[in-house]
Amino acid sequence: MYTKTELMEAHLRTQHLIHRTPVLTSAYFNRASSASLYFKCENFQKTGSFKIRGILNTLLSLSDEEKQNGVATFSSGNHAQALAYGAKLLDLPAYVVMPEDASPIKIRAVKEYEACVFYFKNEKGQREAVMEQVLAETGARFVHPFDAASTIHGQSGVAKELIEDAGTKLDTIVVPVGGGGIMAGTALAAAYFSPGTTVFAAEPELADDAFCSFREKRLIQRDFSRTQADGLKTNLGERNFRIMLELVNDVLPVSEAEISESMLAVWHRLKIMIEPSAAVGLAAVLRNKSLFEGKKTGILLTGGNIDLSAFPFKR
Amino acid sequence: MYTKTELMEAHLRTQHLIHRTPVLTSAYFNRASSASLYFKCENFQKTGSFKIRGILNTLLSLSDEEKQNGVATFSSGNHAQALAYGAKLLDLPAYVVMPEDASPIKIRAVKEYEACVFYFKNEKGQREAVMEQVLAETGARFVHPFDAASTIHGQSGVAKELIEDAGTKLDTIVVPVGGGGIMAGTALAAAYFSPGTTVFAAEPELADDAFCSFREKRLIQRDFSRTQADGLKTNLGERNFRIMLELVNDVLPVSEAEISESMLAVWHRLKIMIEPSAAVGLAAVLRNKSLFEGKKTGILLTGGNIDLSAFPFKR
Repeated sequence: MYTKTELMEAHLRTQHLIHRTPVLTSAYFNRASSASLYFKCENFQKTGSFKIRGILNTLLSLSDEEKQNGVATFSSGNHAQALAYGAKLLDLPAYVVMPEDASPIKIRAVKEYEACVFYFKNEKGQREAVMEQVLAETGARFVHPFDAASTIHGQSGVAKELIEDAGTKLDTIVVPVGGGGIMAGTALAAAYFSPGTTVFAAEPELADDAFCSFREKRLIQRDFSRTQADGLKTNLGERNFRIMLELVNDVLPVSEAEISESMLAVWHRLKIMIEPSAAVGLAAVLRNKSLFEGKKTGILLTGGNIDLSAFPFKR
Repeated sequence: MYTKTELMEAHLRTQHLIHRTPVLTSAYFNRASSASLYFKCENFQKTGSFKIRGILNTLLSLSDEEKQNGVATFSSGNHAQALAYGAKLLDLPAYVVMPEDASPIKIRAVKEYEACVFYFKNEKGQREAVMEQVLAETGARFVHPFDAASTIHGQSGVAKELIEDAGTKLDTIVVPVGGGGIMAGTALAAAYFSPGTTVFAAEPELADDAFCSFREKRLIQRDFSRTQADGLKTNLGERNFRIMLELVNDVLPVSEAEISESMLAVWHRLKIMIEPSAAVGLAAVLRNKSLFEGKKTGILLTGGNIDLSAFPFKR
């Protein structure tokens, strides 16, 4: 299911349609962390996040029959944009189920790519109910945001490129974990393409299902909506959890203050826009300095889609 | 004074100490402008702006005797950071005279590079008075922020690299004008390295001394402090004005709303941080669409040093 060949094929299948995003270094953050940091900038990826990698790998793996009525998904934002963009690229109808309180800028982006948007109330069971209705009415193929082999294969390209482009053997890679697609993909990429490179997952304390699940070695589901890291409000997927148990070293929780400070520090120092979810890796490194001291550390900056109107910057 | 050889020597003299910053393109901004835009990203330059180019060319051109007591300058921000950084790199003492209301983040950056900071009140003659006192007491060499041949030679490297890296012959280049160092350097670089490429200068309506001077063909000095583009609050220098009259096609003023909209659009769409002064080129292109329609247009994003606490983003 998760062979080295499948990861390599996913990368070959999609790489002509995506950006090979840059790897940045920063003397400032190296000093601040006492480590050597390599930032993989998926904020520059098509649609502003890594999600397009898994989408394209999935859509290009479907048969004509499987995708004849288009594709559909649910998502709080980045996966939705990626599905809409990928479907438009391949000339397929796209249906996206989003929470009514999703960021207006993300809803607008989905509509710009001509996808049809349906909304659900943020109450237990509502998302699934709306999704089922959309699938029944359209006959569209459901594309899971994170818990599918083709998605994991696609997301593994981020770490694969980082490993190839860092110019040095990485001691460790830190990856945000929400649903777990890029976490699982990163763990597999490290195991296959850079044996000996460890992987840490980072997540908000306010969405710490992966931390609890990893500690208790069973999948724990939670309700959470208070973290600013809107891309990580999702519970960990079943297959991603199994990969995590096998290949990830530890899960590192970070506070909301650490997330926003790390995000703003990246804006100021690297001069690039990242979203809160993308800042948890750096936040985890800065919080756990002894763990990363002297280490060549890859940090996945997973996306840059942000609604500035949500931030009161006056301090 | 401004030969092709001098421009090439300045680039050779400094390029090992600076970044060759990337040139970005954007399908979104191409659609929005009906042009093909090439963004030269000096926000990624050492110290966060192009200013380090002129500084290093100047410092490396000074004799040991000329710089034996260190170097000094006045600046509202980016030039100050660049002088402090350049002096530290070459192990020289640095003295910087800044307005008391300069951005706290810029003052902090200057101090981080270990320069000694002196403040002046924003009243006529105060800057010069403090500067003279500092020079008398320290014996430091004065380094002008924009109106010196070695500075202009250094700044010309931005357009030279853009011309070399765009991958196509540019029809035109749009450059912000404040004191005029990078405007003059860009005009010279276009004339020498890409004959036939026109140059437009862009400036805030609230700091339109270059616009008025260009129209009346005489240097007009003004007082202005209300533009958010803090890097462009300076009056045009004498030698830069002469180069402008000879080599620049026109000066395009833009409103404060156009500046902030263009800046935020760059943050959102290119996922990079630029400061207000860096947004005037794009603002001018979007305001004067008929002038740039179908044109391969280089836009100089001059810097990315921003104090987020100054921005109320809640809209």
